[in-house]
Amino acid sequence: MVSIGGISEQSQDQSLTRLPVAVDAMGGDNAPASIVAGAKLAVERLGVPVVLVGRPDEIGDTNGIPVISASEVISMHDEPAASVRRKRDSSVVRAAEAVRDGQASSVLSAGNTGAAMAASLLRLGRIRGISRPAIAVPFPVLGSTPTTLLDCGANADCSPEWLVQFAQMGAVYARARFGVERPRVGIMTIGEEAGKGNALVKDTCSLLEETNWTTACGADYVGNLEGRDLMIGAADVIVCDGFTGNIILKSLEGGMDVALNAIRSALRSTPEVSATANLVDPVLAPIYTELDVESRGSAALLGTRGVSMIAHGSATPYGIANAIRTASDMVEVQMVQRIRDMVEQRADSSHDPSIGETIR
Amino acid sequence: MVSIGGISEQSQDQSLTRLPVAVDAMGGDNAPASIVAGAKLAVERLGVPVVLVGRPDEIGDTNGIPVISASEVISMHDEPAASVRRKRDSSVVRAAEAVRDGQASSVLSAGNTGAAMAASLLRLGRIRGISRPAIAVPFPVLGSTPTTLLDCGANADCSPEWLVQFAQMGAVYARARFGVERPRVGIMTIGEEAGKGNALVKDTCSLLEETNWTTACGADYVGNLEGRDLMIGAADVIVCDGFTGNIILKSLEGGMDVALNAIRSALRSTPEVSATANLVDPVLAPIYTELDVESRGSAALLGTRGVSMIAHGSATPYGIANAIRTASDMVEVQMVQRIRDMVEQRADSSHDPSIGETIR
Repeated sequence: MVSIGGISEQSQDQSLTRLPVAVDAMGGDNAPASIVAGAKLAVERLGVPVVLVGRPDEIGDTNGIPVISASEVISMHDEPAASVRRKRDSSVVRAAEAVRDGQASSVLSAGNTGAAMAASLLRLGRIRGISRPAIAVPFPVLGSTPTTLLDCGANADCSPEWLVQFAQMGAVYARARFGVERPRVGIMTIGEEAGKGNALVKDTCSLLEETNWTTACGADYVGNLEGRDLMIGAADVIVCDGFTGNIILKSLEGGMDVALNAIRSALRSTPEVSATANLVDPVLAPIYTELDVESRGSAALLGTRGVSMIAHGSATPYGIANAIRTASDMVEVQMVQRIRDMVEQRADSSHDPSIGETIR
Repeated sequence: MVSIGGISEQSQDQSLTRLPVAVDAMGGDNAPASIVAGAKLAVERLGVPVVLVGRPDEIGDTNGIPVISASEVISMHDEPAASVRRKRDSSVVRAAEAVRDGQASSVLSAGNTGAAMAASLLRLGRIRGISRPAIAVPFPVLGSTPTTLLDCGANADCSPEWLVQFAQMGAVYARARFGVERPRVGIMTIGEEAGKGNALVKDTCSLLEETNWTTACGADYVGNLEGRDLMIGAADVIVCDGFTGNIILKSLEGGMDVALNAIRSALRSTPEVSATANLVDPVLAPIYTELDVESRGSAALLGTRGVSMIAHGSATPYGIANAIRTASDMVEVQMVQRIRDMVEQRADSSHDPSIGETIR
């Protein structure tokens, strides 16, 4: 086994771009069928190399996509950390190990999110100096770059110091993935005025205002933001604890589904309306696509020593193919190395030890 | 001055139905114009008596609606509690006092939410046995009764005991306002399985599972719910802390605005599309209306000794008129008395002192 930590870091990220994305074939609502179909799309249409991980007999014909055999499956109802420890031959664990062992560039799972996080964390490890990995999700902003919200569920309870580090990782991610040269980073809270928020937010605001965290990540701090700012491009990155972020993500996914499905149904409610609606479909279709929180690409677990992506459980083959491409893009832009560089720069230049290497 | 506490409680609620709704004429993005216009709609079209509170010269002609004079205004940027204490002759304070003094049945403000809460809390007081008032907001469920989320912003940091009491007040509210005989009450968290959530949710779940809180309020506990459950009718009442609830509310308001505005614009993007879109407008208009979180009526502050409603700052005259009607309806169904009854029943029958009168 070759440990990633043993390879020169710069050359490692570069060499990774030739490796396949390890895709957990067994995770997701329609796994393995939709996952395998998505992998085929990614290989054949997008030219991204893939290795599928799971039970070969259930995966079936792969059109030549290689398979790493894994006999166990972690279900949506398994307890994440315990199942990762117990099911050592599960698809998501083996997929993460493929990255650790230099067989794959990155890992993608649409299965149990907690298990995907735990497998990535336990098998890949944290980047040195990163206290906690966080899940970053890009939210659509019509006609503009998405706004990245993090943490969207890796850490239900957070410390102010972790949130400062999420802000830094979010800035690095927004620049690498969306080309935002100087990301505007804000904090999610319940009022524009300073001092609005819960105890965690107030403590975090003090750190964000008083420490020089922006230097290492090249961000501009834009202060307090509210829920309504999320989809209008008020910032490039918004920081919150994982409980809040996960609830925002699922509330908006659910709300958008309700709204767009209601409109689609209404436009097919009678034959007369339906005939007319055919004429407006072409202008509405791009909006449906653009507003689909999921289609913007999967969630990224930032802070692990290897790219780990989490796709929606209900992702279609197209969603899976997009997520595979995103995983490949994250490797291409050397996301892991960029976070390492940020941490090291911070460690060198930080004037405040509370956000340096000593974070608990 | 007649203190509400001094009147027999049953007769008080009944006599209140003949009193006007005290409307803060100076609070809101387009105050006083849109507030006065809304008050006129409420009086003339809905037959609800209103008294406007504010600066008579700015309020102008009221078509005979009485005015209580108040010389000061609390702006959106004033610090809530401090400004309520300092601006004793402000419109929102005087409006709350009108309820306290038996001149009005209820108070409505579209101004500074924190100030409206503080004025209601300080001038009306808490219902005996209620630890903290909470803001209840009904979220639209297409074709069904709304789901009430609380707390939507009164308390940024909460204790588990408060959340249990919010669950009880929410059940009373869902029954009184929406006729749900036995409300299904759940808790907002980040996974269906028991044990998912942050520290507050875990502690609250223990209380919700182990105490007999449902007896006093006639609810069924349905356990963990997620953000995606909010707009599909998975429960009648969902409980969360005020930080989380406020962020959910504003995220969904913002997201719905973005989605529905994008669709409306696309349907007017070219003359050809626009001509066609005129034909589908009749089927879409009801959806726009039904999905508008705001049009479902204003937010209710539950737990104060008098009905206090909070309208959206950007509410149109129709929104204000709807909110005035809702305030009147809340008085009609004796909301305050129902919460009192619930508290007393609980105090009598509770087997667990932790959710009785001794809540901190």
